[in-house]
Amino acid sequence: MSLINRQLRLKTRPEGLVQREDFDLQQHAVPELKDGEILVRVLYLSMDPTNRVWMSDIPQYMPPVAIGEVMRALGLGRVIASKSPHYAEGDLVQGLLGWQDYAVIDDRRRKDYVKLPAHPSVPLPTLLGGCGFSGITAYYGLTEIAPVQVGETLVVSAAAGSVGSIAGQIGKLRGARVVGIAGGPDKCRYLVDELGFDAAVDYKAENWKQALAEATPDGVHVNFENVGGQVMRAVLSRMVNGGRVALCGLIANYTSGARPSDDYSIIIVKRLTVRGFLAFDYPDTPKAVQELVGWVMSGRIKAEETIEHGLENAPVVLNQLFEGNNRGKLLLRVADDV
Amino acid sequence: MSLINRQLRLKTRPEGLVQREDFDLQQHAVPELKDGEILVRVLYLSMDPTNRVWMSDIPQYMPPVAIGEVMRALGLGRVIASKSPHYAEGDLVQGLLGWQDYAVIDDRRRKDYVKLPAHPSVPLPTLLGGCGFSGITAYYGLTEIAPVQVGETLVVSAAAGSVGSIAGQIGKLRGARVVGIAGGPDKCRYLVDELGFDAAVDYKAENWKQALAEATPDGVHVNFENVGGQVMRAVLSRMVNGGRVALCGLIANYTSGARPSDDYSIIIVKRLTVRGFLAFDYPDTPKAVQELVGWVMSGRIKAEETIEHGLENAPVVLNQLFEGNNRGKLLLRVADDV
Repeated sequence: MSLINRQLRLKTRPEGLVQREDFDLQQHAVPELKDGEILVRVLYLSMDPTNRVWMSDIPQYMPPVAIGEVMRALGLGRVIASKSPHYAEGDLVQGLLGWQDYAVIDDRRRKDYVKLPAHPSVPLPTLLGGCGFSGITAYYGLTEIAPVQVGETLVVSAAAGSVGSIAGQIGKLRGARVVGIAGGPDKCRYLVDELGFDAAVDYKAENWKQALAEATPDGVHVNFENVGGQVMRAVLSRMVNGGRVALCGLIANYTSGARPSDDYSIIIVKRLTVRGFLAFDYPDTPKAVQELVGWVMSGRIKAEETIEHGLENAPVVLNQLFEGNNRGKLLLRVADDV
Repeated sequence: MSLINRQLRLKTRPEGLVQREDFDLQQHAVPELKDGEILVRVLYLSMDPTNRVWMSDIPQYMPPVAIGEVMRALGLGRVIASKSPHYAEGDLVQGLLGWQDYAVIDDRRRKDYVKLPAHPSVPLPTLLGGCGFSGITAYYGLTEIAPVQVGETLVVSAAAGSVGSIAGQIGKLRGARVVGIAGGPDKCRYLVDELGFDAAVDYKAENWKQALAEATPDGVHVNFENVGGQVMRAVLSRMVNGGRVALCGLIANYTSGARPSDDYSIIIVKRLTVRGFLAFDYPDTPKAVQELVGWVMSGRIKAEETIEHGLENAPVVLNQLFEGNNRGKLLLRVADDV
């Protein structure tokens, strides 16, 4: 083959936002496949806050990406050549494909690469968003980690984002009063008018803590937390005694070098149960995906994506997550599906 | 009656350790009882970290003690006069008696004052310690909040203190490997030699984090946390994925004016469940007390007390908790039981 594979390899660990210069754009010929290997054309890359964590060498749930290594990222791709009995040309696969045009995968690691129907019932971007790990994370957060009950108040932070937007809608399906926290009036209108949230609080507005109090007159029973920092502190201060927190992410901390000043004492004062979780822990995801696909196809859940283009732009596209520019799932389109 | 009641009333909110000058020692004649009231001679006062929190006007689970108010404290006393059909002279009561020689109690608040057997089967100090709220807190922490299983590793901080010493022993009764963290070699020897802990780590020693790692070769499954700050961070860093934290107290923070720099991210990284709790939430305590009394009387649990004397010394005696001078339950003896 004479295919050229562009790869973004980590050159320096970013401080704060990611710079293009933190990565090397290298070009290599795609190697001949060995027995048991497949070649995947990367179609979409999922842009996730966790990518930023993987670039840092702080303690985390996977090893950090090493200097010189292709940047780790979840993606969706098509098998274009196979020397494995487990995959055929044309198969659609999802897994850690990385910031590159082509991924060579050894089928001994096939448990890490989900084979999806070649012609799925929802659009490809939704397979990485509302019906992918973002949706699965929201699903387990509100069913296993901090189940929300009919009539309770659920507050979701980063509510216009990929996980938050699905979490809030699942909260509505479960009969909760749902309040979203997002940045700016446009996102807040979107949450209420298009996604059916009961209220939205713009954390960039003055007096937003007062607005949060007014939007949660009975207190907060469940917090689906994606942000941390002052947003989380404000929500915790509104929680009822015995409230539950599904601690999904702390995006406020990911680009700040400083150690966050969070405070555990409110967990005692309010007798909270706080559970950290990762969607990766639920390998039996078909049930969640099936339910999510059903909700999306029936229109009960709206799954939106913000799609950017060009592998070479990955480092700066990722920053949208920390600048709060995206709505719904942020994806990078690497190639057309042919 | 011509009884004189000495009372310690909060004059100024302490900063750091408590000073005698933060309180006014006032003397008043005990008033005539009205119908429905009882007069209680205070025998013992329970000296608890929460007393220090009550002196501050930070958010907490009860209103702070007001300036000019008698300092709030749990105590054990004898009814010496009664105009209530619910109490008789000689009854032993436990409840919020306050830093004073005599407490006048309205029997409409009798649910807050537990009537104990007049001649209990364990010594009076133990009723405020191992078989009182300290023991009850340890009991619920390891049965309801973060149940520890046979073969798991339990780490208890402030392990030579009133709650920690009981928690560690309950952990042993439940078949766990128990590691205590305490300050100084004497306390550490006490934990291992007298209370039967499997190991003890002296957080004042050099390389104590290394010692903690060596004492927890399989990681930590349950953390019964009384301290917070760097002790808690070190334990969390040793926890297994999916570990449980019974968050009982954060004594490291109570006398520091600065906002603690704790960090929630490890809760996600390790998929922890962290539950804050207060023993006050379990009004159905007879079962716990019955079990604790049984354990103490049979010698399966050792309940030790450090007993100081003199109501007027209450402010400085309390500081022992923050200076780590006491072993087991810290009590102030206010009067002899006649």
